[in-house]
Formats: sequence, C-alpha cells, structure tokens
Amino acid sequence: MAEFDLIELIKRRCPKARADVRLGIGDDAAVVAVPAGHELVCCVDTLVAGVHFPLDTDAADLGWKSLAVNLSDLAAMGATPAWALLSLTLPTADADFVSRFVDGFAELAALHQLDLIGGDTTRGPLSITVAVHGFVPSGRALRRDAAGIGDGVFVSGILGDAAGGLRCLQAQLAKDSAMDAACATLMARLNRPSPRVAAGLALLDLAHACIDVSDGLLADLGHVARASGVGIEIEEDGLPGSTALFECFDVDTARALQLHGGDDYELAFTVAEAQIAAMQAAMSKAGCRVSRIGRVIAGAGVHVLDRNGDRKHIQGKGWEHFA
Amino acid sequence: MAEFDLIELIKRRCPKARADVRLGIGDDAAVVAVPAGHELVCCVDTLVAGVHFPLDTDAADLGWKSLAVNLSDLAAMGATPAWALLSLTLPTADADFVSRFVDGFAELAALHQLDLIGGDTTRGPLSITVAVHGFVPSGRALRRDAAGIGDGVFVSGILGDAAGGLRCLQAQLAKDSAMDAACATLMARLNRPSPRVAAGLALLDLAHACIDVSDGLLADLGHVARASGVGIEIEEDGLPGSTALFECFDVDTARALQLHGGDDYELAFTVAEAQIAAMQAAMSKAGCRVSRIGRVIAGAGVHVLDRNGDRKHIQGKGWEHFA
Repeated sequence: MAEFDLIELIKRRCPKARADVRLGIGDDAAVVAVPAGHELVCCVDTLVAGVHFPLDTDAADLGWKSLAVNLSDLAAMGATPAWALLSLTLPTADADFVSRFVDGFAELAALHQLDLIGGDTTRGPLSITVAVHGFVPSGRALRRDAAGIGDGVFVSGILGDAAGGLRCLQAQLAKDSAMDAACATLMARLNRPSPRVAAGLALLDLAHACIDVSDGLLADLGHVARASGVGIEIEEDGLPGSTALFECFDVDTARALQLHGGDDYELAFTVAEAQIAAMQAAMSKAGCRVSRIGRVIAGAGVHVLDRNGDRKHIQGKGWEHFA
Repeated sequence: MAEFDLIELIKRRCPKARADVRLGIGDDAAVVAVPAGHELVCCVDTLVAGVHFPLDTDAADLGWKSLAVNLSDLAAMGATPAWALLSLTLPTADADFVSRFVDGFAELAALHQLDLIGGDTTRGPLSITVAVHGFVPSGRALRRDAAGIGDGVFVSGILGDAAGGLRCLQAQLAKDSAMDAACATLMARLNRPSPRVAAGLALLDLAHACIDVSDGLLADLGHVARASGVGIEIEEDGLPGSTALFECFDVDTARALQLHGGDDYELAFTVAEAQIAAMQAAMSKAGCRVSRIGRVIAGAGVHVLDRNGDRKHIQGKGWEHFA
C-alpha cells in the first residue's frame, strides 16, 4: 500500500465534524480558526515501540493511547481539545495495522469532538507522534507554577492502576501468571486511559497549579513544587486506589505503584482553602471523583507522610526516559 | 544525561523572542496567542535516520533541515511562521548531538522569528518530528486546489540541486568520487534548504494554487492538478537549474533530477494571466527568483513538453515512502 493510500485510509476513518477547520488533511498544512478571546494550547508526545509499549500491543489500543496521553496534557491546562496532527512511522505500509490504529484513535477523538487535520506517514521503526491543539479563555490556562502555600493538594480518579497493569502484562509475558479479572481491569487502564478533559475544564478559575500524572505522582508533584517554589506533603493513606489494585498486589507494592508508577493520566492539582467547596461541587458536576491527598507548604520537594504524620524515606522515582 | 537536563539544554539554546508566547517550554502544554483576524496554520513532518538522512549526517544540518522542511509547508500556505514543537527520539542521551542539533535548529528559527515552545524527548531509534505553527489573514491561505485553467505555472528559485547533492553524497559514500566545489554546492542545498517563507507571503492574493516541491516537481504538481481538477503542461527547457547541477551531471540526468528529485523546498504555484506582472514585482521585492515553467490546461495529469512542444513520455515518479 502506498503512502497516499494510507493517508486516504486515515482520512476516511477519522471524524471531520468541526466547523472551525478551514482546511484539513490533504494540503501542505492545515488551517483552523481559534475562537476569539481564546489562546491556543498545544503539545506533542511520541510513543516508541519497545520503549513506551510492547511490540505486540493491539493497534487500536495504541491509536487510543497515543491520543489520550496528549489530551491528558491539554486537560492539565484546562483546555478544550480541538485538532490533532498524527505522524506515523511504520516498518511497512501495513493497511490492517493502520486501520485498527485509526479506529482506536478515532474512537477517542469522537468522544472529545476532536478532528484529525493533518500528519505525516513515513517508513522506519514503529513510532507514533501526536500533536494536539485546543484552546483556553485568554489568560486562564492552568499551570504548574501557581501552587500557593496552604493550598490543598488533590488528585482526580484513582492512582496506580496503569502501573499495576504493566506489572500484570510483564508477568503474563513471562508466563508466570494467568490473566484474572482484576489484572484485566488494570491492563485496560494501562491501554485505554481516559484523559480528564471535563475535570480540567471544571478546574478553570478554581485550581491554582495543575499537572497530569504521567511520570508518576511524586515526580509530577515534584515538577509542581519546583515550578511554584514550594514544598508538598502527601498523606500516603489518602491516595485513592482501586479494589483491583489491592487484589493484585500487597499494600506496600500497591503504594509504590501509586507513588512512582506513572501512566495514570489523572490530574493532580492544588486549590486554595477558600475554593475547595466550589472545586468539589464543580468536579462532582463533571462526574469526576476527587481526593484530597496533601497540602502545599513552605520549603521544597515532595514529602510522603505515614499515618502518624511522620515523613517517610522514599526510594525510587518516576519515569525517566534516559535513566 | 537525564531527560530533564536535555530539555534544559534545548530550552537554553533556543530563541525566546516572541511576545505572543504566553507559556513556553516546561509545562504540560504551551499557550500562545494567534493574532486577531488570522487563522492558525499547522503541519508536522518526521525525519527518520537511514530513511530521510544518512546516519552520519551532521547534527546541526539535521536541526536546520527538520525545521526547514516544515517551514517550507507553511511557506506554501502563505503563512507567517511563529511557533514549533520538537519531538526528538534518540538512542542515547547524547548531549553533544543535542547541542549541535539545537544550534542548527535555532539558527534557522532565529531567521524566521520562530520560538520553540515545547516538545518531547524519548529514547528509541533516531528520528525527529517537528510540528510548526504560523498564521494567515483569515480566509487567505494559499491552497493546492485553486489552480485555474489558463493560469501560468511558476516555480521559485532553482530545481534539482538537492537531488544532485544526494547523488554526490551517495557517490562519496561509495568512495568513487572526490568532493569538488560543484558537488559541495549541491550538498549544501540538500542539507540546508532555505524555506521560501518571504516568497509565500508575497504570493498571498496573487497566486491561485501553491505547493512546496518536496516529493519532486512532477509529483507535487500532480497533487495540484488532482486537487484542482485540471491538467498541467511543463516546458522542460523552462526549468531553472544551477550551474553546479549542469557541471556535475549530463543534461538528461540533470533534467530527471529536476523533474523527479524532490527535496527542493521551492514553491510551485499558478497565477492568472492578469496577475502575473504584479506577482513578478512582488517576488522581485521579496528577493526571490521566479521562472515560468508551464501552464494550467483543461484535463488531468502533468505533462512535460520538449522544445518542439510535443509531450514526452516520462518514466519514474516522486518520492514514495513505502515504494
């Protein structure tokens, strides 16, 4: 299958629903209109075979996830997703792989009224780069550097499932574990994360700092602490976890996965005391569970408190590409 | 070197000159402001080691070229470049490679007042994905589908040098040729193409259809013909070429490189007869050579005419990633 046929296949299967797309797939570049009074929010993420996902990952899951990790970044800014560019590098022009990939991508895109407006297909070792674009009301994007001393620290949804799913997957690959229902639940969270777009929008004007949990809770809160010039204390017992996680792992392992695992694509954010009730109401309206996990303090770094309120010595850290 | 150090290195060396960047490198996503009355223009291109460039290509040339091929797409839309996202996939966290890469990238970025506003660094087989963003006055982007029957067909600059440079490079690698001055000229055009941004801006409201010559003149004019529902006739003797090209290759080879070679990053465009004088004046003001190479006709396909005006039978085609 030739490049132009692949592009036709991708174009045919992706939603084209937005009136603000002046020119989509098929020209030298796409042309879109950002609504008046709004700023453009954009980011890019690359997933490499054998690094970010096993080579035999289902193509539809890859399509979903390659978009999800980017939408999660938009969510962390409080942005409304709108458009994506997709650069697909493939060892061969495998129409079946591309069809399934695009199905997964399009399924998530449709949930967020996002149009694929352009991209590139090249030959090479399998990797996927997605750039997404959205918009926020001017001046109101959520940022990492806005945590204030005294803020409560919160997280959406639950933590640790994806990292638990990766452990299950590795055990399966090593053939030393049968797949059970709890494992399947965790792996679904690994393969098909749900970016917290509605939650991000609900947090506009209510959260101070916000970040998505991709590298691991401690690593990501570390980014917030550093950018904001503050310290953060986390109560270990406050971390929200799933039944499946605690079915599959002992408490210590589960806690470690929650603190360091990454790939959660939840939002971690800080809220001034006076705004907490309004934030909770807004998150409830958005249908998003929210848990208080700690507080912003003067100082530096992220510290984990045990149930007695004492600081624990924490080993390990988040995802490091070149570690 | 860890990922965060690489990002710091990239951030430090890239220009940060634009007032419309509300939030650049270092958050979950970048935030920028598109000027009122303008639409956003964006595209993405991936260069893979061993496919788009030899593994031992100079890192600074790669940095330049990975941005240049994208700016060329913006130029073909008549867009003003503004912001870029860079996703760099590297086998190892090689600080020296990244420094040189960013130097080349930043050198071209500075020429076009473009800011690097975000990106991703991952481990994997060497490849580079750049997404660029610019803007056009609303509704005025140049497109592929706007060629009109009777239009003259024009090209900026000269054709064939980059493809000639690639031949020289391959001969050098095969050790059957010494590097001479003409060869060096051609290879410089291969490694450091100059995107025709000023020319694209000069063509706004004057050109009908426009495309950049990346896949090869015939292939790219084929895209214009197909999108516009017209045919195109090219006069072979009208193709602008450099002295260096005709020094290095016989006439038939040189012509083939001009027609099929690609990687020129010139603009090919069509202009209504009544606008030709104004277009020539605008291109002259932009400091850009322009040559008339043919005309738009009723029908389909791209046809090459010999000096007697007869259609030649043309073999070969442009760059096909999965051919």
